[in-house]
Amino acid sequence: MTDTAHMLERLHAAILGKRGADPAQSYTAKLLGRGTAKIAQKLGEEAVEVVIEAVSGERKALIGESADLLYHLLVLWADAGIAPDEIWAELQRREGISGIAEKKSRPKP
Amino acid sequence: MTDTAHMLERLHAAILGKRGADPAQSYTAKLLGRGTAKIAQKLGEEAVEVVIEAVSGERKALIGESADLLYHLLVLWADAGIAPDEIWAELQRREGISGIAEKKSRPKP
Amino acid sequence: MTDTAHMLERLHAAILGKRGADPAQSYTAKLLGRGTAKIAQKLGEEAVEVVIEAVSGERKALIGESADLLYHLLVLWADAGIAPDEIWAELQRREGISGIAEKKSRPKP
Amino acid sequence: MTDTAHMLERLHAAILGKRGADPAQSYTAKLLGRGTAKIAQKLGEEAVEVVIEAVSGERKALIGESADLLYHLLVLWADAGIAPDEIWAELQRREGISGIAEKKSRPKP
Repeated sequence: MTDTAHMLERLHAAILGKRGADPAQSYTAKLLGRGTAKIAQKLGEEAVEVVIEAVSGERKALIGESADLLYHLLVLWADAGIAPDEIWAELQRREGISGIAEKKSRPKP
Repeated sequence: MTDTAHMLERLHAAILGKRGADPAQSYTAKLLGRGTAKIAQKLGEEAVEVVIEAVSGERKALIGESADLLYHLLVLWADAGIAPDEIWAELQRREGISGIAEKKSRPKP
Repeated sequence: MTDTAHMLERLHAAILGKRGADPAQSYTAKLLGRGTAKIAQKLGEEAVEVVIEAVSGERKALIGESADLLYHLLVLWADAGIAPDEIWAELQRREGISGIAEKKSRPKP
Repeated sequence: MTDTAHMLERLHAAILGKRGADPAQSYTAKLLGRGTAKIAQKLGEEAVEVVIEAVSGERKALIGESADLLYHLLVLWADAGIAPDEIWAELQRREGISGIAEKKSRPKP
C-alpha cells in the first residue's frame, strides 16, 4: 500500500471541485457541462481503447487507457451524484455474500 | 474515508488469490483461465451496461454495473500482470503535471 | 453482385415477420420483447466482439461477428420503426454532398 | 426496394477506390492508413453512439449513427480484405440452417 492508495478518492474530490469551474480552463468542468449522454459516450470510448490495448498486449498503453477509463467513470459517478464509497460498499456487499464467486450466481437481467 | 476505502486493493488481492483455483468453484479462476480476449470482451460488455444505465438514469443499476466494470477491469489487470499501484501512479503523474485539466492537452494517438 | 445482395432487406423482412411470434420459438421475438435497452446492449456486445476479432486478425471470426452485429443492428432498427431504406438514403445523402470524405467535415455533437 | 438498395455495395466499392488516395483529401484513405486497431476503435466508438441514441429514443440521431457504424464496419472489412458478399453468405447460411432462430442455438464461445 503506497500513499497513492487513496488516489480514486482524491480524484473524486478533484472532480467535484471542478464543478462550476470555467469549461475553457478545465476539461472536467467542460465534460460535466456536456451532460450525461456525452460523459457516458466518453466512458464507452475509453472502454473500447482498454479492450484494444489489452488484446494487443500493449501493457504500457493498457495502464494509460485504464487510467482514462477510471477518470471518466468517476466523472460519470459525479454526474449521477454517486460517491465512490457507494461503489466500495456494493463490492463489499458482494464479497460478504459469497466471495468473488458471488458474481457467478448473480442473475443477470 | 471509510474502512471500505481500500476495497480495490482487497479485491485485487482476492483476484490474485483465485489464480489456479478450481474454475468450477470460482468465477474469477474460470475467467482468468479463458484468457485475455475473453476477459477484455467481458470488460467491454460491462462498459456497455454502465453506458446504458447512466443514460437511462438508473442510479442503483449504475452502481451495480460500475462495480461489475471495476471487478472485470481488475481481472484484466491481473491477467496483464498490472498492479493497481501502477494505475494510481499514472493518475498521480497526470495530476502532478497539470491537474485534471492535463487530460485536455494530452495528445490522443 | 450475387443473389445474396438483398440479404439485409430479406433479413429486415424476416425480423418484422417474427414480431409477435412465440418468444420460446424465436430468438428475434424474444429479443424484441425485451425492449430497446436490452437490444441496444446486445448490439454493443456484438460490436465489442467485432473489435476483438478485428484486432486479433481472426478473419473468419470477424465475418461471423460482423453478421451478428448486422443482425442485432437490424433488430434495433425494427424496434425503433426504422426501415433499411432510411439508412441507405442517409448514406446516399452524405455521398451526394461530398463523397465519403463528407464524414471528415461533419461536425460531431 | 429502391435504387438505394445496393447502397452498401456502392459504399464498399467507393471505400476500395479510396485506397491509396491522398489522406489529406480523403477521410477513408486516412483511416485505412492508420491501421486495423484505429479502424476497430472508431467502429467501437460509433457502436457506443448507436447504443446511446437508441436508449435515448432519438430516432433521427439513431439513423445518422447507424450510417456511421455501417460506414466504419465496411472500412474494417476493406482493411481485412472481406467483401460484403462474404457477410451476406454467412447471414444466408444461418438462415438456411434454421431461420433467424438459428442464432438462439448457436453456441457462444
